[in-house]
Amino acid sequence: MGTNKNLDFFFNPGSVAIVGASERPGKISRIILESLAKTGFKGSIYPVNPKYDTVAGLKCYPSLSVIGEAIDVAVLALPAENVPEALMGCAGIAKGAIIVSGGFAEVGGKGKELEKAVREISKKEGIRVIGPNCMGIYDAISRLDTFFIPPERIQRPKAGGLSIISQSGSFAITAMDELAAEGIGVARVVSYGNKSDVNEADCLDFLADDEATKAVAIYIESVEEGRKFVEAASRCCAKKPVMAIKVGKAGAGITAAGSHTGAIAGRYEVYRAAFKKAGIIELGGYEEFTVACKAFGMQNEAKGNRVMIITDGGGMGVGIADACFELGLEVPPLTEELKKGLKPMFPPYFSVSNPIDLTGSATDEWYADALEKTMAGDNYDMAIVAALWGPPALTDRLPDMLARKRGFGNKPVIICSPGGVFSRSKLELFRKAGLPVFSSPEAAVRAAAVLAKGAKAKRGRS
Amino acid sequence: MGTNKNLDFFFNPGSVAIVGASERPGKISRIILESLAKTGFKGSIYPVNPKYDTVAGLKCYPSLSVIGEAIDVAVLALPAENVPEALMGCAGIAKGAIIVSGGFAEVGGKGKELEKAVREISKKEGIRVIGPNCMGIYDAISRLDTFFIPPERIQRPKAGGLSIISQSGSFAITAMDELAAEGIGVARVVSYGNKSDVNEADCLDFLADDEATKAVAIYIESVEEGRKFVEAASRCCAKKPVMAIKVGKAGAGITAAGSHTGAIAGRYEVYRAAFKKAGIIELGGYEEFTVACKAFGMQNEAKGNRVMIITDGGGMGVGIADACFELGLEVPPLTEELKKGLKPMFPPYFSVSNPIDLTGSATDEWYADALEKTMAGDNYDMAIVAALWGPPALTDRLPDMLARKRGFGNKPVIICSPGGVFSRSKLELFRKAGLPVFSSPEAAVRAAAVLAKGAKAKRGRS
Repeated sequence: MGTNKNLDFFFNPGSVAIVGASERPGKISRIILESLAKTGFKGSIYPVNPKYDTVAGLKCYPSLSVIGEAIDVAVLALPAENVPEALMGCAGIAKGAIIVSGGFAEVGGKGKELEKAVREISKKEGIRVIGPNCMGIYDAISRLDTFFIPPERIQRPKAGGLSIISQSGSFAITAMDELAAEGIGVARVVSYGNKSDVNEADCLDFLADDEATKAVAIYIESVEEGRKFVEAASRCCAKKPVMAIKVGKAGAGITAAGSHTGAIAGRYEVYRAAFKKAGIIELGGYEEFTVACKAFGMQNEAKGNRVMIITDGGGMGVGIADACFELGLEVPPLTEELKKGLKPMFPPYFSVSNPIDLTGSATDEWYADALEKTMAGDNYDMAIVAALWGPPALTDRLPDMLARKRGFGNKPVIICSPGGVFSRSKLELFRKAGLPVFSSPEAAVRAAAVLAKGAKAKRGRS
Repeated sequence: MGTNKNLDFFFNPGSVAIVGASERPGKISRIILESLAKTGFKGSIYPVNPKYDTVAGLKCYPSLSVIGEAIDVAVLALPAENVPEALMGCAGIAKGAIIVSGGFAEVGGKGKELEKAVREISKKEGIRVIGPNCMGIYDAISRLDTFFIPPERIQRPKAGGLSIISQSGSFAITAMDELAAEGIGVARVVSYGNKSDVNEADCLDFLADDEATKAVAIYIESVEEGRKFVEAASRCCAKKPVMAIKVGKAGAGITAAGSHTGAIAGRYEVYRAAFKKAGIIELGGYEEFTVACKAFGMQNEAKGNRVMIITDGGGMGVGIADACFELGLEVPPLTEELKKGLKPMFPPYFSVSNPIDLTGSATDEWYADALEKTMAGDNYDMAIVAALWGPPALTDRLPDMLARKRGFGNKPVIICSPGGVFSRSKLELFRKAGLPVFSSPEAAVRAAAVLAKGAKAKRGRS
């Protein structure tokens, strides 16, 4: 392991060298150079390759030592067999290296030996290493971006408070791309792949003290240093919500995880116990992972698990109530006082209850009034608002009106807006109003459940 | 109950009367008249209202009796208190009535009495009745459309083989709208609301013999005539896959179902047992309902539950394998013979297994070759292909190439393509190629599971 315990230099680097920089379009090193320019990285950028005088318009150096400056992060984008030598070249110059190349432990045989060499050099020379077989770092705060997929294919999210750490690169970029499309911001995203040095525990340790990070989501295939992980996770959980998905749970999944990053997936129960001990919110899969990222990316954790449901489609309300029950959320009936307050606001034949069904006669005002009345006081911890766009009186003002009326205590308001072309064209309005919006009752309830778990985890922490 | 046991006249009507037809734009009756014109209903259309000489350019009749012809379907779009009289006016003239008006049993009090009157008239005069408190029928075959939400807000699906019957109107239109957006066709969609006469059993009885219907999806809040339901469902299941969601499962959901359509939701276990007895595939909620509709709308049922997973993102492959395990699907390892056949097609460092990870170097051809090789023979019953669009070599040819290579036995191929803007822009290509595509691993696996249940149900039937 490298000497720098604090990984701050990885996330706020003053200088980055791209070892193996290439002039050829489409080459990984070239994409990274272009990304750094596009995302607006503010530090120094040094292409390194003895073959070129310039790369992408920047002066290119034959070796790291010629630069004549200490480097924070050296990005190694080289064939696996050239990586150990290049890493040796970082000794005494670079604090850390991100090795994006594949062809190491995950392919077995010679790859395993190459990875062993990387580990030894990292330890001996005190160079912290992220990777190999990874995408590295996308940092929306410092604008470091070693994710070597062009932004045309994988959008980078704007700056926000959510940090993601992931053993899998494809998982990280897919989630990132989805969050970008939904307008959710991120702080730090780390894909650490085979973790020859830096692992999930190191990242958690950094993120615990990182002010830019308000919530953390983790994708895990395996954890080798269990005690260190639980310690770092506990410390992080004490300060902010931490959620995690563990894949490779059983059967083919375990085998697949092994051939993916060389992980030994281990028994799922052990991970569950570790998550629980640390106060980590357990997530079931990709769907729950992105739902949780959207929820925590736009809303605070809920104070409890009591949900008010407001809908204009009776059947949808019933489905949401069912899903709440299944995920352990309460849907308490309206108090007599609330009923009295609500009754005069609606036609006399309305069944004023929880869920409240505003019917096909629904208006923007009814939605806003129902939300304001029910979120006031201490009867509910959050609201799920199912807005079906059939009712002709509903207008584009609805999302802003809901956002303004969410009432006291800044309680989470989650939107469920399923349907086709017309409904989908309205999703952006909710996002712009700062409301997380989901296209199915189940996804909305999953979001509510994860925000409620945030509350529980918080109680555990305090 | 009416005298006509065969409901064919509802779904293939030669003539439709709109009782309470109005000239005023936005009125329910007016929207229905416009929909009938837009969707291209081929039969005769008779507006009925003593106040007008013409409505929407059509001759308007003061009463049904003045038309001087037998009517197949009278659509009653009137205030609840005027419905019993209007239904009496149908006696001896109309075979059936669709009562779209609300304000009946679902509001209690006087509404309950009005519904009782409707029931009695229906029985006494032999008029079959759909509703009240419903959307009625959208029939993509006969082009009957009484769903009174303008098509700008709720798209109508094209003609296809899936029929939907739903107690909830909002559920039916939301699902319909989503299917239309995804290019899935439907045959008959029935929203029957308070079912004063025609219920789910009657509809199933019709759909069992309906040649246009290849699969049936049902949304249920309650079933009153249990024995009749199981008989009709069993008969239908013997001929085609039937899937159902029962909402109002517990707690607030049960209460909500009661105030929605006046349903007595009953114990969920009883419904599960009835579904099992009839051979119905049980669906968990809205998400699983739409997933199942998409799967059966585009693919045949699978012959078994053995899944081959092909991906270019290792982490996504692991997640899919996990989800398969959780839903009881098998992910059998490759046979030695298959491995031998596949190995030479890919770089030597590839781990050729199930899931197979084509990595960031993936090409259209690799995907097609892997699919063709693994779907040949009898090792797998279906494939889940997770196409992440990061790899630069993937092109728009991929969906068609996959569709062509799906191999022998017409095995289901399900696409998982999560991500943001770029990935979402490719979804349409898969749909056009006839491949059901889902935006999360979990949704893709749910689709696979429901197609596998189709196989089990079939075995049960044979």
